[in-house]
Amino acid sequence: MLNISTRGRQMPASPIRKLVPYAEAAKKKGLKVYHLNIGQPDIETPPAILDAVRQADIKTLEYSHSAGNESYRRKLVQYYKSVGIDVRHDQILITTGGSEAIMFGFFTCLNPGDEVIIPEPFYANYNGFACAVGVNVVPITSNIETGFALPPIADFEKVITSKTKAIIICSPNNPTGYLYSREEMEALKLICIQHNLYLFSDEAYREFCYDGEYVSAMHLDGLDQHVVLMDTISKRYSACGARLGAFVTKNKEVYDAAMKFAQARLSPPGLAQIMGEAAVDLPASYFDAPKAEYLRRRNLLVQRLNAMPGVFCPNPGGAFYAIARLPIDDSDTFCQWLLEDFSYNNATVMLAPATGFYGTAGLGKNEVRLAYVLNLDALNAAMDCLEKALELYPGKVPGKKLTVADTAK
Amino acid sequence: MLNISTRGRQMPASPIRKLVPYAEAAKKKGLKVYHLNIGQPDIETPPAILDAVRQADIKTLEYSHSAGNESYRRKLVQYYKSVGIDVRHDQILITTGGSEAIMFGFFTCLNPGDEVIIPEPFYANYNGFACAVGVNVVPITSNIETGFALPPIADFEKVITSKTKAIIICSPNNPTGYLYSREEMEALKLICIQHNLYLFSDEAYREFCYDGEYVSAMHLDGLDQHVVLMDTISKRYSACGARLGAFVTKNKEVYDAAMKFAQARLSPPGLAQIMGEAAVDLPASYFDAPKAEYLRRRNLLVQRLNAMPGVFCPNPGGAFYAIARLPIDDSDTFCQWLLEDFSYNNATVMLAPATGFYGTAGLGKNEVRLAYVLNLDALNAAMDCLEKALELYPGKVPGKKLTVADTAK
Repeated sequence: MLNISTRGRQMPASPIRKLVPYAEAAKKKGLKVYHLNIGQPDIETPPAILDAVRQADIKTLEYSHSAGNESYRRKLVQYYKSVGIDVRHDQILITTGGSEAIMFGFFTCLNPGDEVIIPEPFYANYNGFACAVGVNVVPITSNIETGFALPPIADFEKVITSKTKAIIICSPNNPTGYLYSREEMEALKLICIQHNLYLFSDEAYREFCYDGEYVSAMHLDGLDQHVVLMDTISKRYSACGARLGAFVTKNKEVYDAAMKFAQARLSPPGLAQIMGEAAVDLPASYFDAPKAEYLRRRNLLVQRLNAMPGVFCPNPGGAFYAIARLPIDDSDTFCQWLLEDFSYNNATVMLAPATGFYGTAGLGKNEVRLAYVLNLDALNAAMDCLEKALELYPGKVPGKKLTVADTAK
Repeated sequence: MLNISTRGRQMPASPIRKLVPYAEAAKKKGLKVYHLNIGQPDIETPPAILDAVRQADIKTLEYSHSAGNESYRRKLVQYYKSVGIDVRHDQILITTGGSEAIMFGFFTCLNPGDEVIIPEPFYANYNGFACAVGVNVVPITSNIETGFALPPIADFEKVITSKTKAIIICSPNNPTGYLYSREEMEALKLICIQHNLYLFSDEAYREFCYDGEYVSAMHLDGLDQHVVLMDTISKRYSACGARLGAFVTKNKEVYDAAMKFAQARLSPPGLAQIMGEAAVDLPASYFDAPKAEYLRRRNLLVQRLNAMPGVFCPNPGGAFYAIARLPIDDSDTFCQWLLEDFSYNNATVMLAPATGFYGTAGLGKNEVRLAYVLNLDALNAAMDCLEKALELYPGKVPGKKLTVADTAK
């Protein structure tokens, strides 16, 4: 009999996308579905970068250099300089989305059976890529009570073994919105140096920091050989569909090895590279409007959530996600129920159960992730739905109430 | 000490791209370099499909469905019908180039340590992807004397073990240009059924068949559960830089597992999908001109090569590659010498040493791959260079002369 592979069986389905059939059914019933389940912003892609593609004089759309067009990589050197990162164009490898940058990191730095530590809750697809390449994810838990701050160093040291090769961080964080402080980044640096670990730093949301300073892994002195920056233009310029990212490292051996994986897949997308190159020429003020808009949304979302009985949502310092604790029995059941059995004003809301963002089984059962990627009116209407749903949901349980002030501890 | 991964060390450098620094140096010296080393056609990308992107009304370039836009997949159903392949849109998964389709095939069907049989010489990147995912390539040798026909069934049976999970074929073939006959395809079918193997069929060049009928793996009755079609628009529409391909299978379990890998990387490139969708509306006559042009080039190339003393080139039935046997000691040395130490009329020619296309060490040392992706004038000039080079090359050895007629045996 023909069998699929073990990794094909073990590969987790996307927790963000697995409820899609229920959403489609809800829409077929005529319901409006507010999508807070996925980080697909409604912000316009800057017209100038789409125009750059429209106006490009292309006769034959050829393979680019496997590392991406040199002209684009040289432009990115300018961009990184503007965010305090000093790299050369031959330390940048253009990838197909941030996804491929993560994949190249795993391929290049980890053997099958090696371990990577990730503070949980974490971006669920890290798990998927790890499964694909045979790497084991070792989660260490950050808690909603502390607003998902970096777990204590002792928690890292407890799980470090001879198999541990890397730590993955994402700041500002998806799914929590937490923004690591300089002190937390310095603590990570010490762990990496002491235990000889790579630091994979996913900085997809660096432009969206609201209550604190953005600290890149590449801002840390003395960590050059350890850091692999995983980047993307998806969120920065609201261009998720472009599939354009970057793998950046000053470790030449890592770069050269990643380049061999890049050569095997020939080149990153060509039209998207035109967009990416044009984006670097956007005025610095470009980010003001989307950032202000996300901040308004965050403030509304957090205020509305914490005003609901039994609900607690720490105030996220960046990105456009928040995790809220709800007075419910099971977030998977609840999110499905929202789509299957609930409506309010002929609408419902789609959320991501937080269970999919934890590596530790059983965690996140009373938490959901909300992406504030809709405008204020839609967000208010979505919160009206959620508020009503929490009144009606049959699996309601008494919530432990925390206040935002508690998270400052 | 920080170490890169074992697969990062073992990953082969691209044999097609590894001579690039020598070509760059030659150009800096002022030489014209005729690039016959890489399958990057000079044919124009159809302006209509680039116009489709230019005219698309995009406000936010969003993630597409992880399997690709449904509208594009439904269009592809029409396209496949036009080439005699009957599939549904939910059996098509849009990928980032054919490369990702190959990767998904490995991830989904093979475990680390499993074996895949590939007739050699083969597309070198199969090796790269296999290395990345821990799969072992088992080559079986096809010979220039038979024009690279499918090796006898007995050769397959000799190497099939309990670890063997799949056969990869590419017809018309890169790098040989060989086009498998219906009899050869039927023979492959029997092996796959008898030994429970997947058949990965790379059909990137199906539009370019000159001397025979195109037979898809999907034309074979009773093999539906075994076949994974790996496809791309790169060569079909001379759109290599778009990075758009497809993974097509009627095996639902394989499709569903591949879909999980597709979800992890979110979606294929968005702008390229607009191109791909528009391409299906090109008139059927679109292929007449490029096909006729490639045929003229093939005829010129094969004629010129076989007219050179000691050179033998079988007549390839499809694609736009040929492998020639040259009277040389070492094709790697020769190809580098062409770029470093030779010029004729202020020009030289870049070829791909065939060694990189063989899995068996030592094979291909007196063979090179030529991609006939340049116009007739350039091709003639490149052949002038090669002819002269073979007179001057210090590592010249007496060649065993075969004629094209011999390959009919």
